[in-house]
Amino acid sequence: MDLEFYMFGPYKIHKDEVFYLSDLSYAMVNLRPVVPGNVLVCPRRDVKRYSDLTNDEIIDLWLIAKKIGMMLEDYHKATSLTFTIQDGPQAGQTVPHVHIHILPRKTDDFGRNDDVYDAIDDEEKELKQKLDLDQERKDRTLEEMTREAGEYRTRLSH
Amino acid sequence: MDLEFYMFGPYKIHKDEVFYLSDLSYAMVNLRPVVPGNVLVCPRRDVKRYSDLTNDEIIDLWLIAKKIGMMLEDYHKATSLTFTIQDGPQAGQTVPHVHIHILPRKTDDFGRNDDVYDAIDDEEKELKQKLDLDQERKDRTLEEMTREAGEYRTRLSH
Repeated sequence: MDLEFYMFGPYKIHKDEVFYLSDLSYAMVNLRPVVPGNVLVCPRRDVKRYSDLTNDEIIDLWLIAKKIGMMLEDYHKATSLTFTIQDGPQAGQTVPHVHIHILPRKTDDFGRNDDVYDAIDDEEKELKQKLDLDQERKDRTLEEMTREAGEYRTRLSH
Repeated sequence: MDLEFYMFGPYKIHKDEVFYLSDLSYAMVNLRPVVPGNVLVCPRRDVKRYSDLTNDEIIDLWLIAKKIGMMLEDYHKATSLTFTIQDGPQAGQTVPHVHIHILPRKTDDFGRNDDVYDAIDDEEKELKQKLDLDQERKDRTLEEMTREAGEYRTRLSH
């Protein structure tokens, strides 16, 4: 069950970036987090829209999101959380695989509170460019992401 | 079970603005929708943070959100949906009662796609001002909201 990689739309996500796994869902750290601790929770099945999810998948995703959100807020000493699904291209979705963005939030972490959403879009566009075109850019290293994922994995197993 | 009003944090929401009701959740139309069809889904229990929700409440909220999202996208001839919870003040939450914003989205419905989130915040701030201070502002009439809620109620009962 512990695969070498997980599919995120057309992209392969290395297993070391995945810090939480259930039968239906997985959670991963981000190549370029918008704020520290910005993670994604996805169904393991490659489905594009929220309406494509089964009830079991919806339940699993959102119960995991609660658990992960609480861990992230505590770990990053944050005071709020943003949960968002950009469900379809006109809502800002660029990777066609349902995903919940969870972001630990702090006072003044963004100039304007909601600029965080533009940053989410840009980050996804960059992911797409990177993986499509292999353009040069400053990604975090797999080592760095593996370390972060390890921290979360430990916290969630307590 | 069909009450005269529902509590949204400290505010009373008239029953005619509520178009969907379960044992644990309710959904309402918006006094000043950010886009046509911008509705809110809330737990009936007055809880502030996502982490305060029981698992049953989480499950109920997000299964209802799927059902309502599909109805809204169809009804408003939209092509995408935004689902977001601003969970805590640093994430933009101004009414201290958990609520999912659902917005049917279309191409170019906002100049910048994510300005929609600023609009959500402004709308909440205005709700707060309005209800706190009873300032003069252009609200939709109860009649108009009742009509919209009636349309959704009919669609969801099919």
